[in-house]
Amino acid sequence: MLLDSTIESWFVEDVGHHDVTNDVPGMAEGRLVATEAGTIAGLGAGQAVFEYVDVDAELLAADGDSIASGDAVLTVSGSARDVLRAERVAVNVVGHASGVATKTAAAVEKARTVDDEVTIACTRKTTPGLRGVEKRAVAAAGGDTHRLDLSHMVMVKDNHVAAMGLTDAVERLRARASFATKIEVEVDRPADAPRAAAAGADVVLLDNMSPAAVTDAVDRLAAAGHDAVLAEASGGITIGDVADYARTGVDVISMGSLTHSAPALDLSFRLD
Amino acid sequence: MLLDSTIESWFVEDVGHHDVTNDVPGMAEGRLVATEAGTIAGLGAGQAVFEYVDVDAELLAADGDSIASGDAVLTVSGSARDVLRAERVAVNVVGHASGVATKTAAAVEKARTVDDEVTIACTRKTTPGLRGVEKRAVAAAGGDTHRLDLSHMVMVKDNHVAAMGLTDAVERLRARASFATKIEVEVDRPADAPRAAAAGADVVLLDNMSPAAVTDAVDRLAAAGHDAVLAEASGGITIGDVADYARTGVDVISMGSLTHSAPALDLSFRLD
Amino acid sequence: MLLDSTIESWFVEDVGHHDVTNDVPGMAEGRLVATEAGTIAGLGAGQAVFEYVDVDAELLAADGDSIASGDAVLTVSGSARDVLRAERVAVNVVGHASGVATKTAAAVEKARTVDDEVTIACTRKTTPGLRGVEKRAVAAAGGDTHRLDLSHMVMVKDNHVAAMGLTDAVERLRARASFATKIEVEVDRPADAPRAAAAGADVVLLDNMSPAAVTDAVDRLAAAGHDAVLAEASGGITIGDVADYARTGVDVISMGSLTHSAPALDLSFRLD
Amino acid sequence: MLLDSTIESWFVEDVGHHDVTNDVPGMAEGRLVATEAGTIAGLGAGQAVFEYVDVDAELLAADGDSIASGDAVLTVSGSARDVLRAERVAVNVVGHASGVATKTAAAVEKARTVDDEVTIACTRKTTPGLRGVEKRAVAAAGGDTHRLDLSHMVMVKDNHVAAMGLTDAVERLRARASFATKIEVEVDRPADAPRAAAAGADVVLLDNMSPAAVTDAVDRLAAAGHDAVLAEASGGITIGDVADYARTGVDVISMGSLTHSAPALDLSFRLD
Amino acid sequence: MLLDSTIESWFVEDVGHHDVTNDVPGMAEGRLVATEAGTIAGLGAGQAVFEYVDVDAELLAADGDSIASGDAVLTVSGSARDVLRAERVAVNVVGHASGVATKTAAAVEKARTVDDEVTIACTRKTTPGLRGVEKRAVAAAGGDTHRLDLSHMVMVKDNHVAAMGLTDAVERLRARASFATKIEVEVDRPADAPRAAAAGADVVLLDNMSPAAVTDAVDRLAAAGHDAVLAEASGGITIGDVADYARTGVDVISMGSLTHSAPALDLSFRLD
Amino acid sequence: MLLDSTIESWFVEDVGHHDVTNDVPGMAEGRLVATEAGTIAGLGAGQAVFEYVDVDAELLAADGDSIASGDAVLTVSGSARDVLRAERVAVNVVGHASGVATKTAAAVEKARTVDDEVTIACTRKTTPGLRGVEKRAVAAAGGDTHRLDLSHMVMVKDNHVAAMGLTDAVERLRARASFATKIEVEVDRPADAPRAAAAGADVVLLDNMSPAAVTDAVDRLAAAGHDAVLAEASGGITIGDVADYARTGVDVISMGSLTHSAPALDLSFRLD
Repeated sequence: MLLDSTIESWFVEDVGHHDVTNDVPGMAEGRLVATEAGTIAGLGAGQAVFEYVDVDAELLAADGDSIASGDAVLTVSGSARDVLRAERVAVNVVGHASGVATKTAAAVEKARTVDDEVTIACTRKTTPGLRGVEKRAVAAAGGDTHRLDLSHMVMVKDNHVAAMGLTDAVERLRARASFATKIEVEVDRPADAPRAAAAGADVVLLDNMSPAAVTDAVDRLAAAGHDAVLAEASGGITIGDVADYARTGVDVISMGSLTHSAPALDLSFRLD
Repeated sequence: MLLDSTIESWFVEDVGHHDVTNDVPGMAEGRLVATEAGTIAGLGAGQAVFEYVDVDAELLAADGDSIASGDAVLTVSGSARDVLRAERVAVNVVGHASGVATKTAAAVEKARTVDDEVTIACTRKTTPGLRGVEKRAVAAAGGDTHRLDLSHMVMVKDNHVAAMGLTDAVERLRARASFATKIEVEVDRPADAPRAAAAGADVVLLDNMSPAAVTDAVDRLAAAGHDAVLAEASGGITIGDVADYARTGVDVISMGSLTHSAPALDLSFRLD
Repeated sequence: MLLDSTIESWFVEDVGHHDVTNDVPGMAEGRLVATEAGTIAGLGAGQAVFEYVDVDAELLAADGDSIASGDAVLTVSGSARDVLRAERVAVNVVGHASGVATKTAAAVEKARTVDDEVTIACTRKTTPGLRGVEKRAVAAAGGDTHRLDLSHMVMVKDNHVAAMGLTDAVERLRARASFATKIEVEVDRPADAPRAAAAGADVVLLDNMSPAAVTDAVDRLAAAGHDAVLAEASGGITIGDVADYARTGVDVISMGSLTHSAPALDLSFRLD
Repeated sequence: MLLDSTIESWFVEDVGHHDVTNDVPGMAEGRLVATEAGTIAGLGAGQAVFEYVDVDAELLAADGDSIASGDAVLTVSGSARDVLRAERVAVNVVGHASGVATKTAAAVEKARTVDDEVTIACTRKTTPGLRGVEKRAVAAAGGDTHRLDLSHMVMVKDNHVAAMGLTDAVERLRARASFATKIEVEVDRPADAPRAAAAGADVVLLDNMSPAAVTDAVDRLAAAGHDAVLAEASGGITIGDVADYARTGVDVISMGSLTHSAPALDLSFRLD
Repeated sequence: MLLDSTIESWFVEDVGHHDVTNDVPGMAEGRLVATEAGTIAGLGAGQAVFEYVDVDAELLAADGDSIASGDAVLTVSGSARDVLRAERVAVNVVGHASGVATKTAAAVEKARTVDDEVTIACTRKTTPGLRGVEKRAVAAAGGDTHRLDLSHMVMVKDNHVAAMGLTDAVERLRARASFATKIEVEVDRPADAPRAAAAGADVVLLDNMSPAAVTDAVDRLAAAGHDAVLAEASGGITIGDVADYARTGVDVISMGSLTHSAPALDLSFRLD
Repeated sequence: MLLDSTIESWFVEDVGHHDVTNDVPGMAEGRLVATEAGTIAGLGAGQAVFEYVDVDAELLAADGDSIASGDAVLTVSGSARDVLRAERVAVNVVGHASGVATKTAAAVEKARTVDDEVTIACTRKTTPGLRGVEKRAVAAAGGDTHRLDLSHMVMVKDNHVAAMGLTDAVERLRARASFATKIEVEVDRPADAPRAAAAGADVVLLDNMSPAAVTDAVDRLAAAGHDAVLAEASGGITIGDVADYARTGVDVISMGSLTHSAPALDLSFRLD
């Protein structure tokens, strides 16, 4: 849910006290057009930006759609001054979200070449202020949002294990977490994966392991009968090696770069 | 200036109502460490994030510094719970700003191989909510902030020219702009550059021109005696062709990708 | 995490433009004292209220502690004006949170008389603006927070089932939900409980059923081998009948009244 | 006046980053229905909640109305997604306000059994963030808002009296208070009531006195000819003993429990 | 009470995204100095502005003090960058508040030449965003804040009287107002003053009357025995004719110009 | 651009928790009428205030128009309660902005009696919270906004010069400022004006100089051939001596009093 106060802050940072450039009379119409192919997202945010200044905005596409260069995704109509003031803000947010969606779609496609089921997820490595916009862009493009915030899924991390041992750490956090909350346990080596599952993990995070080590961990989980426990590979995985990880049989591959390092999709606003 | 309300919103989106994972007793110390080489930026924002939850944070580097993989840039000390809650937010903002700075430094370096003076500037194509963080990161890395918001510099654009003709459009906006404000005029073809200068432009924007066309425009400005008028090349210029544009003798090269498409610099938070 | 802007809004609503009453010189010390027995909670919020106006505040108890009438839970020291302006706000929030904790502790105690394991949970029926304060008060008193917000756990509700049928509805939401997110399915009659579990529910919500019907549903789930699926009873359950529900073998009993109908714990602020 | 930023904060706390449950297509209509009898209030807030997400909402009752179980109080129509996202927030605020109104109406009714004039007032012991909603609910149900904030009426309290003596304390605060502001003086024993009135009190607060002591104080005020001075009884008065206090001839009976300990009125949202 | 979010908004509007001018190293000390004589006010706001950016600020005077040209009222010490960024904001708010205080003191002084008791009050005609700062400046200078907001004192206005008649209007609003709230009744001609008092007014507003008419109204109130009812003269009264109104025996003279038309007191910030 | 959150804060400060006065039924229409002649401004802000509470508002004049006493500038139509709640806020902001515009127009008119070209500018000495409203009022009345915030134009001040010498100070700030940003250099004596221009100033600020000294500085700039450099006179210039400064040939005369010491224009809201 995009907040009015967030949109207001985007206008504050872009308009300033006295915008002479766009102080023009009359009405205007225009379109937001993709100038390169990709996966569109953030359209609701773009629409909300225009509507914030009382400009009508109609969507011509839906988040997650593949678009070609030249496709219009949004048309607007309103006072020329307001259209012109909003267009840069709208292009910036839709371009950013669509960059995330395009990178996500590329990762999913790579993974699909070797596995029909593996989930491609983003992480909490999002751009400050844009958590929701980016998570929803990932989901629109066929990716998984992973945990939305610290309160969504409990993570048993190396510092917990160092302090209490793996089994005690999982038990302690299980006792404090809600029944509504899953628990993920981070492990550094394949042999710890079945131990984490036995201790009560819903998800085992295989952190910074090679594809071979991930395969080993997945096999150990299966051998120990932990079919209901999900395995997630994470740590510096790129579009270049996502297929290698997809081949391991892991359930989830998470990639921070989907959100923190996706180049914006090139969009242009055109007055009619 | 980074606002308290902005930092608050970053915590709101990452913490949620009941963070069990990080609800640990005791004190903690840690370091923010670069895990790849680059140009660091956003350190003040990272420090402010920790201080917002009363964690002491000390800078070990300054914005704009070149750092090697393994360099620590910030140390913190405070309640373990607060350190752990702040670390992801801090990594996200410093990583993002440093990605912008690293890309800017790369563009500046490319340009310097052929020209000692040309200015490398970013644009208003920034990530919504991070205008100031990104502009200051560009400046720290040796780039130029360009206009900070719509009220900073007046831009005479194609829609103004279409409505009024170039000379009238410049004069009308000159009459409405403050004496404290520069006026930039956008032109599409080299022959219009001296016309824009003659009409009173402080800066002429050579939009979407090839390096040859930019050279032509720069020569025409010089031939017409407009030494005090700056020329800026803009439109899809990448690190790959920035040197070609630098050779044209243009004063400023602006690149939207410095802010909207810079991959984050990889950083890691390590507990001591 | 209690936000500075939230605390600010509490002062705005209580102070107004010109508070003559508390405009007194000098320093003051005081204590927050319980004037009836109960379970204390919200102490962090109370402390933050005083600290917001630069009054030192020290906790004498921890959230979840049982306290007797007359026990001091917080001492403060600061400018008399600021102490006096903050005391009502602090009493209001600590009294409210402690009321929730006291009611939760009573429900847990009732349930424990018949079952050592059953979870007593609150719901999303919280007081607007106090979601986090109330959820953390429930947890401190030995209750469970249940889902924290709409994004925390997916709920398959009667309107989904009416539109798509139970199995399709669960599958559709399972496909759209993150791997990090549990799915709860609401059923109206015991016979649907194993159907929901078979469709992939992590939790089955037994809505508005009598204790006998809950027992029936729990038995059907066991008979069908759904050991890993949790069963939750909900709908108008009071402290008077919580033991009856606890006897059914259900895993979770949720009660909206823990948060929306708990009388405040009586507290008093005393100047030393 | 309910603020947009307050409503926004209610959605923030309940929706989160990715609400899959309610992401359903199409339009929806529904009704807010009372599932127990009581006095309704907070309808304007409930309407504003729906309107915040562009759902049309029409009132079928007015704040202060007595309603029976089964009565609809509000109908809505809009996008199904937005209706479903808003309904819990709206139920929570209307249920809370109506709980306050219902308790107030009960107290007023008790008092009316023995006295036609006595005013039943709430206090500043309100739920943080809901001062206005609760005060207006009390007023709608026939109660009195008492002082709205610290700046509304000046209160001469025991700490003022301890520092300066009763007469000097009243005089000092009278000199500093606006002519537009009433002054209430808190006394602990009946004999001080006429002293407070003589010193210039507009209202005398008879704090924590038994009904007999209140009668004594009221008689002493009358005997001393202070007809224009109001007498208020306060301190732990419950619905059980409000009639006893009403019999004393006191002008105002104030009860913190009207706002801090009113169980919510049970309401349900039903899709048509 | 000055809010952090208000101070933040003052910095937002004055600093912008990249302040090169004040980006200087080192520490600095300085003083806020009056460059003309007057009555100082707003010092707490000025101090809070500096403290917001972690600059130490010490007061050398108190709100309401008469100061001479050259007097320092505040000293600061902190990082040079932060001192320089805060000084203009601080000068602006202290200069504005002191202008209000100086004008108030002048009006009070004029009134004192003919009457020792008459109250000089401001109105709700304040500068948007500065209600509290201005009201407290008036009070510091010996004036009266009048009603602080619409909820502070009820006003029976000409539109009420037109709709219901004077007596009914007063009775209706009396029935709806809290016992804690005074009621002021606006009248246009002297003959209505005792009618308003008889109807239950605590204060009678003599609106837009000449000094002679005000005298007449005051006499009529006295003749009718309404000693406890206050009379207020209002409507375009200036410092030039405040003494004429003070001679009428009216209790309160209110002047919108104290807040909406007071020239700022000239202050200067000097680095040491 | 006037922000919704700013308008909200204006209502917060004026309405309070329970406004009985304006709680009237039915619809109302009304007009905002000037009760003295002047230059109107802030009409967009006034309109936005009414629209914030869903009252229709139509402009009958444009910012910068000269109006006579009795002219209506805005008509409104809506619920009586909302019209009455908004009218004071609207009158306050339009009256304030129009006061600034009226003073600006007077200064411009004085200057025009001796010079057709000289620019009359305001400064950063604005009322906290109203920077944009005041700057736009100045512009509407024919004045110049001067620098909008610290990031708009760089100012080389006496402390920079003291630390580095004039030439080095200008060069250092020139190197750090964007190409989009002008640089103004403050000088104390006429002889420094050409030195500042030679060092690279776009504007030379002649601070606190007599008209004779300003003439001297302007002549020295011309003699040194700095035609493209603007000269600005500043420092305590009043409407009484603005013509004297206009005669000097200076390009810009800036006056802090336009914004910090303009009496409000008298306006009245009238119900139809």
